[in-house]
Amino acid sequence: MRTVDWVGDHIELIDQTKLPSKLEVRKIREVSELIEDIQRLAVRGAPALGVAGALGVALAARKTDDKNKLEEQARRIATARPTAVNLSWGVAEAMKHADEGADAILSRAQEIRDQDIASCYSMGEYGADLAQELVSREEIRAMTICNTGGLAAVERGTALGVIQTLFERGKLKEALPLETRPLLQGARLTAWELTQMAAPFRLIVDSAGPFLLSRDAADIVFIGADRIAANGDSANKIGSYSLSLGAKAAGVPFIVVAPESTIDYETKSGKYIEIEDRGSEEIANFHGVRTAPEGTKAINPAFDVTPASNITAIVTDRRVIRCDKGETPQTVPLGNIR
Amino acid sequence: MRTVDWVGDHIELIDQTKLPSKLEVRKIREVSELIEDIQRLAVRGAPALGVAGALGVALAARKTDDKNKLEEQARRIATARPTAVNLSWGVAEAMKHADEGADAILSRAQEIRDQDIASCYSMGEYGADLAQELVSREEIRAMTICNTGGLAAVERGTALGVIQTLFERGKLKEALPLETRPLLQGARLTAWELTQMAAPFRLIVDSAGPFLLSRDAADIVFIGADRIAANGDSANKIGSYSLSLGAKAAGVPFIVVAPESTIDYETKSGKYIEIEDRGSEEIANFHGVRTAPEGTKAINPAFDVTPASNITAIVTDRRVIRCDKGETPQTVPLGNIR
Repeated sequence: MRTVDWVGDHIELIDQTKLPSKLEVRKIREVSELIEDIQRLAVRGAPALGVAGALGVALAARKTDDKNKLEEQARRIATARPTAVNLSWGVAEAMKHADEGADAILSRAQEIRDQDIASCYSMGEYGADLAQELVSREEIRAMTICNTGGLAAVERGTALGVIQTLFERGKLKEALPLETRPLLQGARLTAWELTQMAAPFRLIVDSAGPFLLSRDAADIVFIGADRIAANGDSANKIGSYSLSLGAKAAGVPFIVVAPESTIDYETKSGKYIEIEDRGSEEIANFHGVRTAPEGTKAINPAFDVTPASNITAIVTDRRVIRCDKGETPQTVPLGNIR
Repeated sequence: MRTVDWVGDHIELIDQTKLPSKLEVRKIREVSELIEDIQRLAVRGAPALGVAGALGVALAARKTDDKNKLEEQARRIATARPTAVNLSWGVAEAMKHADEGADAILSRAQEIRDQDIASCYSMGEYGADLAQELVSREEIRAMTICNTGGLAAVERGTALGVIQTLFERGKLKEALPLETRPLLQGARLTAWELTQMAAPFRLIVDSAGPFLLSRDAADIVFIGADRIAANGDSANKIGSYSLSLGAKAAGVPFIVVAPESTIDYETKSGKYIEIEDRGSEEIANFHGVRTAPEGTKAINPAFDVTPASNITAIVTDRRVIRCDKGETPQTVPLGNIR
């Protein structure tokens, strides 16, 4: 099942706000519905948003021949979430074909979708090969954080995509997803995806990750990335840095999995990556229940930075960069998509 | 305000299940009410349970002159929570005076209460002196986990007691409590206590602790302990080990604060400390809301073990043990309660 797709004459997407209690597929026939769904996080995750943006332009193009109107609609989709770079990228890619008509736009959107699927498949192959090389056990126990699965992409994910490939190869003993406070993407989404694929897993609280690594509960850690600096320092969901310390102390391989597009050669190192603070309410409330006294202020960094010195390897859709051997994104040539 | 106390002819205790939304003081006039309150965690924390147990015997003794009946009541109180060592200890201490009558029992119970208050005060003094020695800033930013404040004791706490002493000395810039999943004692109880004492604080998710230490957000970390092995390895709430890794990587002092009674000389090192698993439901549910799919299993270690090599010092009510200088509980002589 695809997170977001074109079916017949409309867009279909899984409403992620309903998970894990309910699998609800939304049929989107109006651009306004798509914008609303993007804004309320029914669809989320960088690659999924890129595809949703491109498909949104395809939907708009079928309703009008007026190029000004189409551009207006495209602008509205692209700015539905201002900080989501992939969303505006997907819209812009689709709009390059605006003069060729609705079918050409749809073709480009479907191409973006297919490229994401191929890219995730390739990361799964590179990552699973590396895991089997680094771990001497026949069946591997893999720890991960946040949601980096098909729900963040189209069909398969990045870090969770590697775990899925291991599972399909019959090499996964168990997945250990961290619940991922404050928004619980690990508990809500990753546990749901693992349940769907019938993979064995046990959920843990975030702070138990490093301790369980010290007690030999996992053989390898896979995380995604929001941005990778030129030297390999990687920004990812808050909790990743803590997990990297635990992996390093326990001598467990720590692997970052992300497509090539995540590497930002303009950013020299992690210290130049700005950390977004998402405010107090996500922490002081949970589903309408107050968890802290009225007036409680929080520090709520959405992600953190893991230095390359804590990373064993970065796996992309086109190569493996062995940080533990001194390699960086700048020193390893690109390989093929597999 | 005391967490648990004797007032007139009855016990009063703060109902901690109502916090942080409501401060409700329960007046306990029957032993059965006390047992129920202990079982539903209205009163919790090792020292508080010791005092509650002793006061419970005092309450029972005022209702009967029959020693067999009193012994039966004492047994019921002591076993209200089977694993709480302090509870049965408090009951046994009070029962040593069973032949001297109700007033003698009450006196002993009040003595236990007063000793806890003195012990926590002393830890605050030793700990705050150490913090001012180790941190060069005039005003100190202190990180902590779980609830180790007055709510876990009678009037003042252990780790949070040190933070309170720093605040009273005008030396606290800010406290940074971790929310402490899965039961959120940091968000619910520690944030409430800091609010009550009007101390400046900001709440953080557990996994942000190590990262914020790497970004110079705190000068020192204080944690409590459930058990300290003879070599200084310390068992405490899950998340403590992860925080110790973050402190070590950042070069931030990491201080364990607990009374002498926490040191278990029979346990040679942390590897002999058994870790209780509290089951899946605490993680897969929150206040009746499912956070993970039906059927999700979890690993839920209630605490973890921080090796002495990650601990700067252990502060008790009678001494400071500098683990960073190779000292252990066995090598440092006892000092005075301050």
